[in-house]
Amino acid sequence: MINVAVNGYGTIGKRVADAIIKQPDMKLVGVAKTSPNYEAFIAHRRGIRIYVPQQSIKKFEESGIPVAGTVEDLIKTSDIVVDTTPNGVGAQYKPIYLQLQRNAIFQGGEKAEVADISFSALCNYNEALGKKYIRVVSCNTTALLRTICTVNKVSKVEKVRATIVRRAADQKEVKKGPINSLVPDPATVPSHHAKDVNSVIRNLDIATMAVIAPTTLMHMHFINITLKDKVEKKDILSVLENTPRIVLISSKYDAEATAELVEVARDLKRDRNDIPEVMIFSDSIYVKDDEVMLMYAVHQESIVVPENIDAIRASMKLMSAEDSMRITNESLGILKGYLI
Amino acid sequence: MINVAVNGYGTIGKRVADAIIKQPDMKLVGVAKTSPNYEAFIAHRRGIRIYVPQQSIKKFEESGIPVAGTVEDLIKTSDIVVDTTPNGVGAQYKPIYLQLQRNAIFQGGEKAEVADISFSALCNYNEALGKKYIRVVSCNTTALLRTICTVNKVSKVEKVRATIVRRAADQKEVKKGPINSLVPDPATVPSHHAKDVNSVIRNLDIATMAVIAPTTLMHMHFINITLKDKVEKKDILSVLENTPRIVLISSKYDAEATAELVEVARDLKRDRNDIPEVMIFSDSIYVKDDEVMLMYAVHQESIVVPENIDAIRASMKLMSAEDSMRITNESLGILKGYLI
Repeated sequence: MINVAVNGYGTIGKRVADAIIKQPDMKLVGVAKTSPNYEAFIAHRRGIRIYVPQQSIKKFEESGIPVAGTVEDLIKTSDIVVDTTPNGVGAQYKPIYLQLQRNAIFQGGEKAEVADISFSALCNYNEALGKKYIRVVSCNTTALLRTICTVNKVSKVEKVRATIVRRAADQKEVKKGPINSLVPDPATVPSHHAKDVNSVIRNLDIATMAVIAPTTLMHMHFINITLKDKVEKKDILSVLENTPRIVLISSKYDAEATAELVEVARDLKRDRNDIPEVMIFSDSIYVKDDEVMLMYAVHQESIVVPENIDAIRASMKLMSAEDSMRITNESLGILKGYLI
Repeated sequence: MINVAVNGYGTIGKRVADAIIKQPDMKLVGVAKTSPNYEAFIAHRRGIRIYVPQQSIKKFEESGIPVAGTVEDLIKTSDIVVDTTPNGVGAQYKPIYLQLQRNAIFQGGEKAEVADISFSALCNYNEALGKKYIRVVSCNTTALLRTICTVNKVSKVEKVRATIVRRAADQKEVKKGPINSLVPDPATVPSHHAKDVNSVIRNLDIATMAVIAPTTLMHMHFINITLKDKVEKKDILSVLENTPRIVLISSKYDAEATAELVEVARDLKRDRNDIPEVMIFSDSIYVKDDEVMLMYAVHQESIVVPENIDAIRASMKLMSAEDSMRITNESLGILKGYLI
């Protein structure tokens, strides 16, 4: 049983904490949180031990949320830390993980240099085995990598061109904009996503363009892949259909808009209406000779959760890629094939 | 055991069906649905029997969703029908309910004349006992009535003035607007909500104004109540705190925006992140002599669900108001006091 700490308890942290609780080989020793908001209060009520920075102890005590100790106490209690602190804060914590000799999993908001390796389970689990510091790439990069590494099984991926329409904020983030504008992110090519894909697959010819749209539910990607060989649509469809963490969305049941996909998740009674799988629109798959075009949706709040779980096992050398992904998928109800 | 049919399986129908399944004294015999969309498919996969209009049978069979019979077959199988068909369609079904001699519960989208009584459990359960046709008032009217009838316990409510900021569409409704405008609904006073409140509490002096805002999550109400007597804030707070189906939202945990309230529901792992309780902002309660002002949020998708369950029991004369509401609240996890 591995003792896991989660440092940071926001959108990603609370989901990773829930996922750790569901793993047969892991124990959640506690979470670290800086402000006593509703997320902290609900975590406390669910019996999760909350650790806070020294300067936050008073705020928590005034809010009636008991404090189990400091963030350093939490790290000491654990075998490994999943750092889900805000962008850039993980790098500030790294010296503490180093000093206390604890392995750590960072998120895609950190620079690649923070870790020994950038990680996507379907692409490079084996390379990450035993690495003390692993960085799970961001939600958009995770979706790109899952798709690229899966299509790569049919024929070597030689070139990727993609347009990323990004959600502007998570649903709970009421202070962020824009509310009625499209914002190039940035108006130069390539966007940082291409470089981030290259942090996992070196030497791939990839260029990405990104734009922020006023929506909170999901991202969408529009991708064009050039392969080494001519392929058939049925082969692409088949490999996508048989890869867990990718689900297909058919137009048959009238659920294609991101708001409708959220409604499907609600009707399926998924926790927090999360869909951690990449959602590929099966009717969008277009194949011409060595070229594949397709569209998919990405649930930014949950897609990296299974990756974090696998990164823990890779870092601690607990088991093979296949075993880890199978246990993660089963414990979290992650599907392959058609979502409905 | 009462056999209940649900005619119409959209936003309200699917929630009422789920709620019926959770009642110890009710059996869901099936639901009626006109199009084989994702809601129908997920219902089928959950083992719910689906009945369809004659002309829809072919469409369903082509979609691979088995049909249990026609809508008339469904009605015949039941003791009572909850009609959750779109606005105005319920009135078209009424002659069939009459002919087949089945009691029916209608929704607030129908005119008051469709039923023998308009209904809000906290206000007039006893008057509805044994009525063959009961109309559960709309989401906004349900929230107004719950609040008014609760405050009325402290001192007689003599006058109500309210501003209603309405969500434009439900989250799944991707074809509706507006996307960047406020739309008076209508630009005359009073809006229809006042009249609808009067369908339950006759002779109350109430005037309402409404505006549509480009949001999908919840409504908000801004209400000014004049009482017969001078009252104290603590008495108003106390009655609101002790009435199930009303929850208080404190500013303490930084969750006040409707998006944040949805996030609280997600973190609480509520089904479909529903909050059927009226959500009153406790720090908004302002009392001056005989006047009470306060603000609350209304989750339009779920607030009428418990009312429909109680309306079934009232119509079939199954039990007292207190027993029905207690069982409904317990089975659906409906709270009183602070939401968190």
